[in-house]
Amino acid sequence: MKTPNDEKWTNKKISRRDLLKYTGIGAAGVAIGTSGLGGVMKAMGYDVFEPFADNNIANKVNFYGNHQSGITTPVQTNIYFASLDVLFSSKEELQELLQLWTPLVVRLMNGELMVNSSTNTRIPTGDTGEAEGLGASNLSITIGVGPSLFEKLGMEHLKPAELKDLPHFPKDQLQKEFTGGDLCIQACADDPQVAFHAVRNLVRAASGKVAIKWSQAGFNSFPVDGGTPRNLFSFKDGTVNPSITDEEDLNKVVWVDKGWLKGGTYLVVRKIQMHLETWDRTSLKDQEATFGRYRDSGAPFGKTKEFDDFDVEVKDSNGEYIMPDTSHVHLARKSGARMLRRSYSYASGVMSNTGVHDAGLIFISFQKDPLQFTTVQNSLGRMDKMNEYITHRGSAVFACFPGVQKGSYLGEALFKAL
Amino acid sequence: MKTPNDEKWTNKKISRRDLLKYTGIGAAGVAIGTSGLGGVMKAMGYDVFEPFADNNIANKVNFYGNHQSGITTPVQTNIYFASLDVLFSSKEELQELLQLWTPLVVRLMNGELMVNSSTNTRIPTGDTGEAEGLGASNLSITIGVGPSLFEKLGMEHLKPAELKDLPHFPKDQLQKEFTGGDLCIQACADDPQVAFHAVRNLVRAASGKVAIKWSQAGFNSFPVDGGTPRNLFSFKDGTVNPSITDEEDLNKVVWVDKGWLKGGTYLVVRKIQMHLETWDRTSLKDQEATFGRYRDSGAPFGKTKEFDDFDVEVKDSNGEYIMPDTSHVHLARKSGARMLRRSYSYASGVMSNTGVHDAGLIFISFQKDPLQFTTVQNSLGRMDKMNEYITHRGSAVFACFPGVQKGSYLGEALFKAL
Repeated sequence: MKTPNDEKWTNKKISRRDLLKYTGIGAAGVAIGTSGLGGVMKAMGYDVFEPFADNNIANKVNFYGNHQSGITTPVQTNIYFASLDVLFSSKEELQELLQLWTPLVVRLMNGELMVNSSTNTRIPTGDTGEAEGLGASNLSITIGVGPSLFEKLGMEHLKPAELKDLPHFPKDQLQKEFTGGDLCIQACADDPQVAFHAVRNLVRAASGKVAIKWSQAGFNSFPVDGGTPRNLFSFKDGTVNPSITDEEDLNKVVWVDKGWLKGGTYLVVRKIQMHLETWDRTSLKDQEATFGRYRDSGAPFGKTKEFDDFDVEVKDSNGEYIMPDTSHVHLARKSGARMLRRSYSYASGVMSNTGVHDAGLIFISFQKDPLQFTTVQNSLGRMDKMNEYITHRGSAVFACFPGVQKGSYLGEALFKAL
Repeated sequence: MKTPNDEKWTNKKISRRDLLKYTGIGAAGVAIGTSGLGGVMKAMGYDVFEPFADNNIANKVNFYGNHQSGITTPVQTNIYFASLDVLFSSKEELQELLQLWTPLVVRLMNGELMVNSSTNTRIPTGDTGEAEGLGASNLSITIGVGPSLFEKLGMEHLKPAELKDLPHFPKDQLQKEFTGGDLCIQACADDPQVAFHAVRNLVRAASGKVAIKWSQAGFNSFPVDGGTPRNLFSFKDGTVNPSITDEEDLNKVVWVDKGWLKGGTYLVVRKIQMHLETWDRTSLKDQEATFGRYRDSGAPFGKTKEFDDFDVEVKDSNGEYIMPDTSHVHLARKSGARMLRRSYSYASGVMSNTGVHDAGLIFISFQKDPLQFTTVQNSLGRMDKMNEYITHRGSAVFACFPGVQKGSYLGEALFKAL
């Protein structure tokens, strides 16, 4: 395996005064000022550091390409999703941040340390280290910008018309501690510590520049024999999705085809609490009527196999819809809108006031226009039988940058459009 | 693979009146009364149901044996730990609960459904189903009883003298929503959904009998090349542990050797928040001095390899301790007390008031007397340099029953001692 030039870090002469200036670290290695570790790394040349080449690394997702990773990447077992607030107010600082992050994201996805180890133990380590030895673990990192960012940085004229807070939906009970954000980092990996490490270190590298507004860990458990994972209601989740290899269809559903976001997409995230105790007291018949699918097979009502196509308008001999018109799948399909879902379950203990499970779904969908999500959600509306069993607790929407070519950086098209 | 006799469930004639009596389910499959699903299953004969034989099942941990699983079982990747309150007040109900749970635990550890599928879709399913297809995943389940249980059930005379709430330690900031409990279920597995499913279903089977007081999911990430996992401070955690195969040593450290708890052990659980932001601003030198070990190798100060033995009293030529006397490892070793640690990391988003990581360690240790834990903790006391970086938020202690032989049930010795 190729290794980067270790000398860059270890042999670079840094005077003690420089070190103090860069880091704000006293003799005992105390606080880093608001200039942040990102500043340290940048001052030491790390933002121009050439990451490893894209080869000979096991279980590695490619960073470079037409689109960011973590969208059409095969779903991993773990997510750590973070919504961030920016602590700066200029476009230039956003650009610096994205230029800082780009090579670091590459290194993280390569399973490398954020920076090479230093022999100087009197400064904080450049990488927090807990992912050492865990490999690349198919880490994908997806970066997006929220509607609030554009106003903060005085660049409303570049905010796409599609990028705005989602409307209030009838059953929403959103909590502000799980809602909104200026930036997002979606880190998915086949290891929870690798996903967490990625977010922790990107935020740390931008210390003083960003703060986590809210974050959530999640998981997907894949059947031993393969197939669609089940959510905590035990139904297969994600059956109706565009194929992640059908570029033509993805162009229709997922990828934005205009402006600086061309090749990017919109991410909608919803923290949906699932009322497991209520669900678990419900008959299988009612559970299945709630989805419009059979639990065991995942097949739509009236069919036998998970991926069988279906027509929600078909009725039985009594004139009743075969797939009930209050079912989740009926209403979602009837909306006519499509999106690429990429959700994860969460189980965060119990609600301290009631003792019921604080568990559910980090619903994530990608679409070329958030209106696709809104259309489905409006179709579900007050009719959806699922409403009895779930509560939407959090919500955010982000424009995820297009992919990056070597030599470029995340969001470059945005800054070219300025 | 052998299968249980499906006819028992599907062919058993149950009148509609019986069904309503057992379940409290109305026409639409609504609420189960306080008799609970456990009651249903019991009425239908499931508590006498013979679980699968212990063979031909992949990635399976044995339930039967001298000791419960999840103690000397090789550490899995995931935990779901639940502390429960009992909603009953008689010893007989506790006995019924443990008799109900025993075969269900066996089935869960076999990777089987809690009960066989029913063809009756008008009742809630006997198993919530989200672990279907996920296999046994090395699930271990460890059941214990807390000090508060004995008073509640009027059996203080059987409470071992060792089983009592831990004393207050100097730096404790315990929150009642993460502290105490009448019973515990420790579910560990190589899949998060399998661990969660086990707790969810055991609690559901005991609906109306127990309620979750607090619970916490956690993970361990194992290096690709094997070895000790790193905690979120990036230090290897669990290096100094008795060998899980050295019965003689385990008899000294872990297994209780008297009374109804003979062959059992005491579980201490501490929810320890780790202040990652503070840690990440600390120099490597100070981090290592905090542990008394080198981060990369895990070796104790003055040594080169993780498992090298060390003498905390050794000093250098200047008369200074080689392993600082304020270091975690120095103070822990100096206490002279030992225990079997089996901890997991957690990352539960951010604290909504401060935005710092709500992450840390679900510290779990097993010992033949909780005094072993208390001795170490008192030795750490106010001296431990680690105190700057951690806060203990939760705490509980449980007496974990001895192992179960076929034909017996969890806690039988306790009831024989009544």
